[in-house]
Amino acid sequence: MSIDAPAQLVNLQDIRTAAERIGDLVLRTPVIELPHPERPDELLHCKAESLQPTGAFKIRGASNAILQVLETARDNGVVAQSSGNHARAVAWLAHRLGLRTVIVMPDAAPAPKVAAVRALGAEVELVPAAQRDSRALELAAERGCVHVPPYDDLRIIAGQGTVGLELLEQLPDADIVLVPVSGGGLISGISTAVKAISPDTKVIGVEPELAADAAESLQQGSRVTWTPEQTYRTVADGLRTTSLGVHTWEHVRRYVDDIITVSDEQMLAAMRHLALGGRLVAEPSGAAAVAAWVHGLAPAGSRVAAVVSGGSVDPALLASVLEQGR
Amino acid sequence: MSIDAPAQLVNLQDIRTAAERIGDLVLRTPVIELPHPERPDELLHCKAESLQPTGAFKIRGASNAILQVLETARDNGVVAQSSGNHARAVAWLAHRLGLRTVIVMPDAAPAPKVAAVRALGAEVELVPAAQRDSRALELAAERGCVHVPPYDDLRIIAGQGTVGLELLEQLPDADIVLVPVSGGGLISGISTAVKAISPDTKVIGVEPELAADAAESLQQGSRVTWTPEQTYRTVADGLRTTSLGVHTWEHVRRYVDDIITVSDEQMLAAMRHLALGGRLVAEPSGAAAVAAWVHGLAPAGSRVAAVVSGGSVDPALLASVLEQGR
Repeated sequence: MSIDAPAQLVNLQDIRTAAERIGDLVLRTPVIELPHPERPDELLHCKAESLQPTGAFKIRGASNAILQVLETARDNGVVAQSSGNHARAVAWLAHRLGLRTVIVMPDAAPAPKVAAVRALGAEVELVPAAQRDSRALELAAERGCVHVPPYDDLRIIAGQGTVGLELLEQLPDADIVLVPVSGGGLISGISTAVKAISPDTKVIGVEPELAADAAESLQQGSRVTWTPEQTYRTVADGLRTTSLGVHTWEHVRRYVDDIITVSDEQMLAAMRHLALGGRLVAEPSGAAAVAAWVHGLAPAGSRVAAVVSGGSVDPALLASVLEQGR
Repeated sequence: MSIDAPAQLVNLQDIRTAAERIGDLVLRTPVIELPHPERPDELLHCKAESLQPTGAFKIRGASNAILQVLETARDNGVVAQSSGNHARAVAWLAHRLGLRTVIVMPDAAPAPKVAAVRALGAEVELVPAAQRDSRALELAAERGCVHVPPYDDLRIIAGQGTVGLELLEQLPDADIVLVPVSGGGLISGISTAVKAISPDTKVIGVEPELAADAAESLQQGSRVTWTPEQTYRTVADGLRTTSLGVHTWEHVRRYVDDIITVSDEQMLAAMRHLALGGRLVAEPSGAAAVAAWVHGLAPAGSRVAAVVSGGSVDPALLASVLEQGR
């Protein structure tokens, strides 16, 4: 249960405003038809957020936050903490908008993700995972710069919600939408948009079984926190957040129909199928929602959509997955 | 030089009509920003035709041809010959439109491409590469079915031209457009659209140096034919056609500014870069135009676009490419 701050909700209008604000910076990603590996007439409609300029949906929320305080950001720069894709999104936006950036990253972050952020001209500070939130806030206080939180922020949630807005324009009769869950920013925004526009469409979260704090929270009816020692076991390095946020839990509790879990092996098999059947490079986290569908874990529907949330993958991991038969 | 038939040209209106006709069947593919591997501020704008339902642009021309004779196709079925992606496009369209199909494929076609066509319910006939054209025409005559040629046909050229139409809507100030060349259907349609809408935009073809019949044709000013023994040396199995067609040569001669060549190694390196930098799975043929840009072989421009024409790749090849450093 939250004792931090009163939980707040975004609404459909916040998401529509975000869509207008960020339209020039983000890609309207396509919805790709992915045939089922065993039953090719069954199709999954994949919203390919992996094709965003920084390889993940994170650019949507980050741009919606930064563009609202652009003058302060120009004067004092921006700071963010992240396991990878949020960092890259903030660094890319800062580079494109001409802002100074410092990114606080966990020292366990994969080397290619750290390198990608540095290549965009950002300053990087590596700290133990448990300290990254406090260190980012400390930097923001010291330098007066704009803090861009990874998920538990209404501007971030509204920005990520634009995925849901686009998806329902592209696939108005979707009956099930599958969304990977980590800190919950993406599913909070998407579920808000979906339930406002199409209340009968089910929104189902997908989490690694090795980092299933959100699934457990929804079952118990209160926000549960796992340890980093637990969540860092999963190969899905984008889904290792140890709990939902105050605001994201409130959205999940209200709008999300269910959260189901997938194994690491199922995500890796889905990565392979996305590459060969959908020509999309996904990271394990990005393939989580697809994995739930491929392995028959999601409820059946006549028009099922899944968000492929990111594609920043270690080349050796993708190669090893491709070499394995199904 | 052609003695077969008088060469004909498509025009912009043919391409606009095709776009309306095929709009419900094909994906409006996104344009993805690909940073240069050494100079990340330089961007290539990749038109990701690899994301079409059958993994290549071929569905555009095939649907434009079939939809014009749908009644005959319903009565007697369709036949096509192809090294892979055209076959898959015709089989997929036939499956979706409920038509019987027979596909004539060269016996050297990669097994996954043959399997993909059979999985769509098509009858497959494997013949030596040199006989595939005559066998397809023979089948069309025997059965009265609709013959869907792979490239040298005005309906096919107009359909492929819709790539150019979309690209100029998405990137109106493109100054260079790079296009892989095999039989020339894709570049014929694209160059027709581009020169009609934006005459100053350069259209540059890209061919494997091991199958450079079109480059040689443009240099000599007449249509040159290579042998299958020559063209089948390249890893780019989608670009092994031995000559341009009668009609495609006429388009290339008039509208294409230059045709340049790339090595097999350059295409494989571009495949790797597309997967990691652009999250796109491309086959070697599909990466040819990107290879020309990555390796500095294309003319410099401030807004350069490349067509990623296909992504039906052998998993072992993609895995081996990912395991190699640049």
